[in-house]
Amino acid sequence: MNLEQNIIQTAAETKRASRILASSESRSKNMALNTLARMLRASEEKILEANIIDLNAAKEKGLDEARTERLKITSKTIESMALACEEVAAMDDPVGAIEDMKKRPSGIMVGRMRIPLGVVAIIYESRPNVTIDSAILCLKAGNAVILRGGSEAFNSNRCLASLISQALKESGLPEKGVSVLPTTEREAVRIMLKLDEYIDVVIPRGGEGLIRAVVNDATMPVLKHYKGVCHIYVHKDADLNQALEIVYNAKVQRPGVCNALECLLVHKDIAGVFLPMVAQKLGQAGVQFKACQDSLYMLGDTASPATELDWGFEYLSLKLAVKVVGSQSQAHDHIDRYGSNHSEAILTSDYSRAMRFIREVDASAIFVNSSTRFNDGGEFGLGAEIGISTSKLHAYGPMGVRELTSAKFVVLGDGQIRA
Amino acid sequence: MNLEQNIIQTAAETKRASRILASSESRSKNMALNTLARMLRASEEKILEANIIDLNAAKEKGLDEARTERLKITSKTIESMALACEEVAAMDDPVGAIEDMKKRPSGIMVGRMRIPLGVVAIIYESRPNVTIDSAILCLKAGNAVILRGGSEAFNSNRCLASLISQALKESGLPEKGVSVLPTTEREAVRIMLKLDEYIDVVIPRGGEGLIRAVVNDATMPVLKHYKGVCHIYVHKDADLNQALEIVYNAKVQRPGVCNALECLLVHKDIAGVFLPMVAQKLGQAGVQFKACQDSLYMLGDTASPATELDWGFEYLSLKLAVKVVGSQSQAHDHIDRYGSNHSEAILTSDYSRAMRFIREVDASAIFVNSSTRFNDGGEFGLGAEIGISTSKLHAYGPMGVRELTSAKFVVLGDGQIRA
Repeated sequence: MNLEQNIIQTAAETKRASRILASSESRSKNMALNTLARMLRASEEKILEANIIDLNAAKEKGLDEARTERLKITSKTIESMALACEEVAAMDDPVGAIEDMKKRPSGIMVGRMRIPLGVVAIIYESRPNVTIDSAILCLKAGNAVILRGGSEAFNSNRCLASLISQALKESGLPEKGVSVLPTTEREAVRIMLKLDEYIDVVIPRGGEGLIRAVVNDATMPVLKHYKGVCHIYVHKDADLNQALEIVYNAKVQRPGVCNALECLLVHKDIAGVFLPMVAQKLGQAGVQFKACQDSLYMLGDTASPATELDWGFEYLSLKLAVKVVGSQSQAHDHIDRYGSNHSEAILTSDYSRAMRFIREVDASAIFVNSSTRFNDGGEFGLGAEIGISTSKLHAYGPMGVRELTSAKFVVLGDGQIRA
Repeated sequence: MNLEQNIIQTAAETKRASRILASSESRSKNMALNTLARMLRASEEKILEANIIDLNAAKEKGLDEARTERLKITSKTIESMALACEEVAAMDDPVGAIEDMKKRPSGIMVGRMRIPLGVVAIIYESRPNVTIDSAILCLKAGNAVILRGGSEAFNSNRCLASLISQALKESGLPEKGVSVLPTTEREAVRIMLKLDEYIDVVIPRGGEGLIRAVVNDATMPVLKHYKGVCHIYVHKDADLNQALEIVYNAKVQRPGVCNALECLLVHKDIAGVFLPMVAQKLGQAGVQFKACQDSLYMLGDTASPATELDWGFEYLSLKLAVKVVGSQSQAHDHIDRYGSNHSEAILTSDYSRAMRFIREVDASAIFVNSSTRFNDGGEFGLGAEIGISTSKLHAYGPMGVRELTSAKFVVLGDGQIRA
């Protein structure tokens, strides 16, 4: 069997499994999730062994520190995977609910029933906990899943996926409900992305290059999360002490994530007061500033002049671009041009300014007087998330279990025909 | 300016117009729709003249009768376009509504605000009323729209689009909110389908070949409506008189549309009674049967043996495939294999049978004891529709104004930071 046949077979088997999963009981799905939690804890040794094979290979290949760190599984990682399984098991099952059942003038009753999407392919980079996190959300929503992790985590991912298959089997569900692409060859992904007959949606989780490649190759829909270049605009009437706490939180609390602040926009009337406060507090935390001409002298010694490349740049580190703007319109224009439709915030005490920002700015989440760091499935009440969509079709913002479903119309009649 | 530059310019102008439309008031949008209704009625002569140019060209080219018929605009068509504008104007504006606003444990308030998708490209075949129907739904939802109609309707479409632009302008909205691809060259579509920077979604309306080509070429999401191969399964306990009316309605009332019946599945225990009833009533209406071996002798003289090609075939005419099945499971298997995820019906008096059909069959609309002909935005209460999605991402089933929107998260805080 050649590579293509091998992948087609995997996809076809997953599709068949998806039919069974689609109409399986919540009870069975939850049993599988709880079984998986137990098995993860019981298999700690086996998982760590598989992970060490990957870590040793990474060392030999000279993988950089950040990626090696993301590749590493510890007892703590395993416990958090197990807890995630239990948490997802405890969530409501969206599938099967019939919403908005209405009687129409013709006499038919029409409602919408939540259904799984079918087969979800997940393409991701090094972090192996994504294997568990993605798979359990897909399974909860009644989907089957094909996983394609980073090649450097191949052994870790295969070990985790085999535990999922076993948990499915022990709960009376099809073990082929989860599969891992059987090879680390890059060509395998390109082949998979043409199989829209079997795969309903693909979710890439990783850098911009990965996502662009998937968008270009895929014939099935792609739920994508591009970079997060988040701005906070501090209007002249903002409560500056509150603003300082929010800016600090958004930039410093966890700088390596997509909802962290990358560019601060400050109204000119308060820049002279506010930016030195920012320079002091964030400077102490090690933040380096890339400043526009107007703000450079307000930000102290660590500031250096911003270049055109700094606008719209996702640092994912303790760097912050800073720009003074003359008006709210200028802030909107900057965000329109350099933002990434992820998370955008305004800090103001003016009702109309806030309403205008909400109405006009195009991003998956718009914040008034709060930190962009809240753009997260858990914080928004969706439960665990599989990513944050920055494009508008199907889902915009954090995607939880519900976003992994669709809805079909259900019509209950009593002999009605169309006039 | 070459073709590519020309199309990029059109797309970029439409994108700019979409920003303005996105935050325009309902009042302005409705004014534009009502103005358009008035202008359509007042411009009857001009529209018919443009249409006659297309009709004459079609005659010269030897376009077949069905397509010429679809190309033709009459006073009646114009009045129905005008009425559609008024109807859409009278509908609720989905944009701007904030749904599900909830307070989270962190203290932030989180809701979802309906927003337009942005720029919608519509690619369609000969019927020029689609120009008005599509454009007004997109505009109501605050989207800008790029139209690419059939080349044989180029003059009719250009005339209609210019009326829309004028109506937008007169209502204080950007006239570039609607544009027509400036050429009939096929290459123009291929160029447009790579412009995901400007175009948020493409909706092809037409045959399977058109849709497949769009899916393969487009880098932006595609909302697609493949063929409608609809089945009715008549279980052994169905009320046969009611079943006869439903089958007749689904096949005969309007055979040329996607929600018409194409294949009748009948349980073996009642085939001998029910199929002669079908043969008589539908035969009188001119229906020809393509019958499986078991049903052939029950369907009278007009029946001929079905071949493998008849299963899953979209006749769009007074032909009906008929198959006798031994069980509900066999009916499901047949639908799984040959259905098109459009509209599927069961006729039965058994509660459990009906529930099983609803749960297990995968189609955009599932019918119990009613005609598949109800799969329609108007009948389901969505208002006018832009098509029926047969794939599950974003929308499944009829797509009305709401399906032409997305939702962003809105977070109202009071200084909250993430712990």
